[in-house]
Amino acid sequence: MSTGSLILVNGMESQCVPATDRGLAYGDGVFRTLLLRDGMPQHWERQYRKLAQDCAVLNLECPDAELLSIELQRFGERAPHLVAKIIVTRGSGERGYRYESGGSTNRILIAGPPPPDRERRSAEGVRVRRCRLKLAHQPALAGIKHLNRLENVVARSEWQDAQIGEGVLSDVEGWVIGGTMTNIFAVRDGALVTPALGECGVAGVTRERVLEAAQLHAVMCQVRKVSWGDLMAADELFLVNSVAGVWPVRQLEERTWPLGPISRSIQAWLDT
Amino acid sequence: MSTGSLILVNGMESQCVPATDRGLAYGDGVFRTLLLRDGMPQHWERQYRKLAQDCAVLNLECPDAELLSIELQRFGERAPHLVAKIIVTRGSGERGYRYESGGSTNRILIAGPPPPDRERRSAEGVRVRRCRLKLAHQPALAGIKHLNRLENVVARSEWQDAQIGEGVLSDVEGWVIGGTMTNIFAVRDGALVTPALGECGVAGVTRERVLEAAQLHAVMCQVRKVSWGDLMAADELFLVNSVAGVWPVRQLEERTWPLGPISRSIQAWLDT
Repeated sequence: MSTGSLILVNGMESQCVPATDRGLAYGDGVFRTLLLRDGMPQHWERQYRKLAQDCAVLNLECPDAELLSIELQRFGERAPHLVAKIIVTRGSGERGYRYESGGSTNRILIAGPPPPDRERRSAEGVRVRRCRLKLAHQPALAGIKHLNRLENVVARSEWQDAQIGEGVLSDVEGWVIGGTMTNIFAVRDGALVTPALGECGVAGVTRERVLEAAQLHAVMCQVRKVSWGDLMAADELFLVNSVAGVWPVRQLEERTWPLGPISRSIQAWLDT
Repeated sequence: MSTGSLILVNGMESQCVPATDRGLAYGDGVFRTLLLRDGMPQHWERQYRKLAQDCAVLNLECPDAELLSIELQRFGERAPHLVAKIIVTRGSGERGYRYESGGSTNRILIAGPPPPDRERRSAEGVRVRRCRLKLAHQPALAGIKHLNRLENVVARSEWQDAQIGEGVLSDVEGWVIGGTMTNIFAVRDGALVTPALGECGVAGVTRERVLEAAQLHAVMCQVRKVSWGDLMAADELFLVNSVAGVWPVRQLEERTWPLGPISRSIQAWLDT
């Protein structure tokens, strides 16, 4: 997406943002990544609700839903299937961490092609590794998708092997939190479990959709502390995010799994 | 510094950076803030060494020292006394946390006027508060001045009172780490103590200068875990950074101090 990307900065076609933007200076902002299908942002109501919630945590004014939706649809005129990223920052600022409450934000919308391996990984599953980096506990920022993502960058730099689709991260206490860019679910005896994210991690929109789909289909799902042992003892594992959808895990370190029926069901439930 | 700032992006006068810059996307970069006096970057060798060290931790290619120094001096042609900020990011990237090692970085240099209260606070000291936010432990990123500074932003948003010059932060275990934008020193019985920063915080250049000055003048200085009790029992407290210099603390919550002799000595040693 570096050159020739479709980019809208505050509604104007532009390749650049102010050098004094606080998103650059401090990571002072939030973002969303989502699919555009046939020109329409997928699960838009949910995506916007999460964006607004994350903005609220940082005391950022969230751009209007209608405005964002119209701007996203402008991308749709260029290509029917795209991945769009919405960044909301606290705008340009004087030097220093201090900000004026209620100041105007900058919104940056970037669209690019969907990742080429998306469908294949949904169909065939992925190989996954365990990351060395341990996520820090910061309850004041946990769960929100803010622009301070160096932990994810460092964790993703731990491997170069293109056969490995994702890395699983634990926190400083050793509890499993999720992938570098995905949330994780384990299946055991027909029930789901996914990590509680009160101390770190990002509580994604697709994680929320899985939790709701499970409830709707009377599949038990616990949100709790998850150990490495829970993963290793699982009948199935799968990873989710708004772009990938559901990726069954076929291998995590030495342990392997066949494609599992629950992962398939979740894929089907989320596709409808 | 928002409008009409002096800004050089990769050596070119520009007000903007690419919207796909990883500094904006993930806070994937580092920065320095320093004084230009009579057009010359102060303590440049030290500043550059720290910049290069921080880049190395993130596996970023550090721009050439000579190049940066020349660009900083271009600011000096506009005004003799300025505050300059150097941001180095991992450049523009495709979507996703992954990066190619050895990729080209973006360097963004921004200059603005020195803060108006700088001299007064050095002379008269500052009033300081205790922040509620607790800094997370992340040894992989501790000590370096990276662009993930949301904790500082959140901490700085805890107060609006312009009479309060700084807030003191503790970590998740309750140990004192420093101010939102400063390092902290306590004086007790003629000896200095400053927090160890292996788990969080930024190990600033002026902190390093104080440690060396203390050694040179045979003042004992310990780098160790510092408790709130250590601060309250101190004969003097002072805060340091490269722009502020040395600020004696006159009040921290309910406790007050007169201007102390050691703080004055440190100011004098650093001024020479």
